[in-house]
Amino acid sequence: MVINQSLVGVIEAAKTNNFNVYGALNGVNGILNSKIISLSKLNSEKLSRVAITPSSILGSTRDKPDEKYCEEIFKVLKKRQIDKFFYIGGNDSSDTLRIISNKASLKNYQLQCVHIPKTIDNDLVLNDHTPGFGSAAKYVASAFAGVSLDVSSLPGVYIGVVMGRHAGFLTAASGLLKEKDSEGPHLIYTPESVFKITKFLQDVKNVHLKFGKCVIAVSEGVHDENKKLIAHYNLDHVEKDAHGNLQLSGISSLGDYLVKQIKENLNIKRVRADTFGYLQRSFLGSVSEIDSKEARILGKKSVLYSLKIRNSFSICIEERKKFVSPYKIFFGINKLEDVGGKTKLMPKSFINKNQNFVTNQFIKYARPLIGNKIPKFISSI
Amino acid sequence: MVINQSLVGVIEAAKTNNFNVYGALNGVNGILNSKIISLSKLNSEKLSRVAITPSSILGSTRDKPDEKYCEEIFKVLKKRQIDKFFYIGGNDSSDTLRIISNKASLKNYQLQCVHIPKTIDNDLVLNDHTPGFGSAAKYVASAFAGVSLDVSSLPGVYIGVVMGRHAGFLTAASGLLKEKDSEGPHLIYTPESVFKITKFLQDVKNVHLKFGKCVIAVSEGVHDENKKLIAHYNLDHVEKDAHGNLQLSGISSLGDYLVKQIKENLNIKRVRADTFGYLQRSFLGSVSEIDSKEARILGKKSVLYSLKIRNSFSICIEERKKFVSPYKIFFGINKLEDVGGKTKLMPKSFINKNQNFVTNQFIKYARPLIGNKIPKFISSI
Repeated sequence: MVINQSLVGVIEAAKTNNFNVYGALNGVNGILNSKIISLSKLNSEKLSRVAITPSSILGSTRDKPDEKYCEEIFKVLKKRQIDKFFYIGGNDSSDTLRIISNKASLKNYQLQCVHIPKTIDNDLVLNDHTPGFGSAAKYVASAFAGVSLDVSSLPGVYIGVVMGRHAGFLTAASGLLKEKDSEGPHLIYTPESVFKITKFLQDVKNVHLKFGKCVIAVSEGVHDENKKLIAHYNLDHVEKDAHGNLQLSGISSLGDYLVKQIKENLNIKRVRADTFGYLQRSFLGSVSEIDSKEARILGKKSVLYSLKIRNSFSICIEERKKFVSPYKIFFGINKLEDVGGKTKLMPKSFINKNQNFVTNQFIKYARPLIGNKIPKFISSI
Repeated sequence: MVINQSLVGVIEAAKTNNFNVYGALNGVNGILNSKIISLSKLNSEKLSRVAITPSSILGSTRDKPDEKYCEEIFKVLKKRQIDKFFYIGGNDSSDTLRIISNKASLKNYQLQCVHIPKTIDNDLVLNDHTPGFGSAAKYVASAFAGVSLDVSSLPGVYIGVVMGRHAGFLTAASGLLKEKDSEGPHLIYTPESVFKITKFLQDVKNVHLKFGKCVIAVSEGVHDENKKLIAHYNLDHVEKDAHGNLQLSGISSLGDYLVKQIKENLNIKRVRADTFGYLQRSFLGSVSEIDSKEARILGKKSVLYSLKIRNSFSICIEERKKFVSPYKIFFGINKLEDVGGKTKLMPKSFINKNQNFVTNQFIKYARPLIGNKIPKFISSI
């Protein structure tokens, strides 16, 4: 939801430093297909509207560039005499930059590739957190706060399926606005732990006995001990994307499967599941002001760092040693190869012993990221 | 999302007029089971937090009171010497009040029953619109604005399934923030029209050919010419609630079915569906300031009207003759029997000739209701 903040940060800083700025439409795909536009002429009024627009205004791509693809990108950049290439994205984007940067070095062409992190999955190594996460986390936390009140009002079991194939940060965020044990979410399952359906049913039974209701957050990527996704139980056909990832978003099989298990085994009638889907990453108006600010600064700083050093790099928010108040972060840089293609998972200290909830340590880590513009609701009279 | 605003409006006005105020937990169910608490003692700080809390702080119920049930309620109210009974809800609540009010008349007991409208479905006759609708509409409009940007960034077909069994107002709200033809939603289907799958596929094909993408809003209640719900195609078992309504929320069969149809018949690969589920009615922080204000006023006015007249009534926002700017509404009252048990559908003037989108007339009607606190995003550079 804040990717355009970083884009605008880059454009503004580059203009200040007298660079011409071009934008490739649909990521690397736009470079290959000459869909490149000038961004230098955008006035500040337009830039301020771009900045608050969710999703990427320049478009996105699911292309997974291989060596040949990167060679072609490099040729276009060289032909157009581009000397700084900024790419906003996750670990795949960082890895693409690494390959392109290597190609340039081999050809003795001075091309600086700069990676600006952005992923709601929050799964980049060496990054305390990534832009996009705070706003998506705010959406998920707000959704669970609201749904918990709804389920208190009309008791039953509710399952919310949250994005996250490997890393459970976003699902864990479901607990960020919880104030009392009796309020939801009562159970949180992330892909970092093996998901056992018998254990799950026992957990639900216990919570339902205690509170007469149960609100559950579960990552789309939860899997059994053989790494088989629970979302793919009972599915005949599964779609793969260009990265070879099995489709998870836009299908509701996990929620449906868990509802069925609860109804059949626990004799609870009112059981509902929602798959949060695309809303958690694009919803208009659920932006964390902290996330928004940091995304803008990262864009700006990436330009400023690029003027100080010649090498390619990935800019970052440095990992905090301790999660203290007031919240304070520092910016730094990493090598592309140290970030690209790697996935950061939730540390053990963020997941409770029973592997069915988050720890206070996680709350301390993540609570500042969703910002402070949260309605001060009350969970009971 | 604003039901507690009306509650607080009632409490404040009643306190000002020296009434003792009691609240029944879980609606009429709480009256029967003596779960009645005093609300007079709540201080203004607590009341202000209650007011902004989504979902009903007093709980809700799906009980459908029959004559006998209403008789019992009446007995409890009489025993406790209650002389004014305020009930916040939709047309079922209004109908319950009608029965109770009649019982009191027959027994010559002076009981004034006051219905305060609240339903995200916006389906009460003689009401211009109902509290709850504006905020839910804001959620749906914001979701589609964000998703449309997402789909522009990474083209494909997206289907959002919105609540609405009989009335399509909430689904229609998906179009409220659309500015250009090329942006989504491109197609909107509500239960007021017969849903034909061949027509639907042709519509999707046309939009996809024209824009290379297609964003669709569809009501959970869309049905074929035999009144069979499309959501129930391919389903073995369907759950019913106490009102005899077939379950629709918390199941994703409609989205899944439509995705399958598009993939199989139109040779489009990237097709996704989200079922908005509970988030649209409970999401924390997506409240329309207009809706919120009106809900509070209705609560307050219902008390003031109850002091002027002796009869039972349903308070309302009177139907606007014309949808002009600036937005202006008037409050009025209806007889319980004129509102209870009836369902208002979208008028024909709100649906286009092709029955696959809304008209400007609908936009003029509904746009003021979602308020003005909407980020001024931009759909393209």
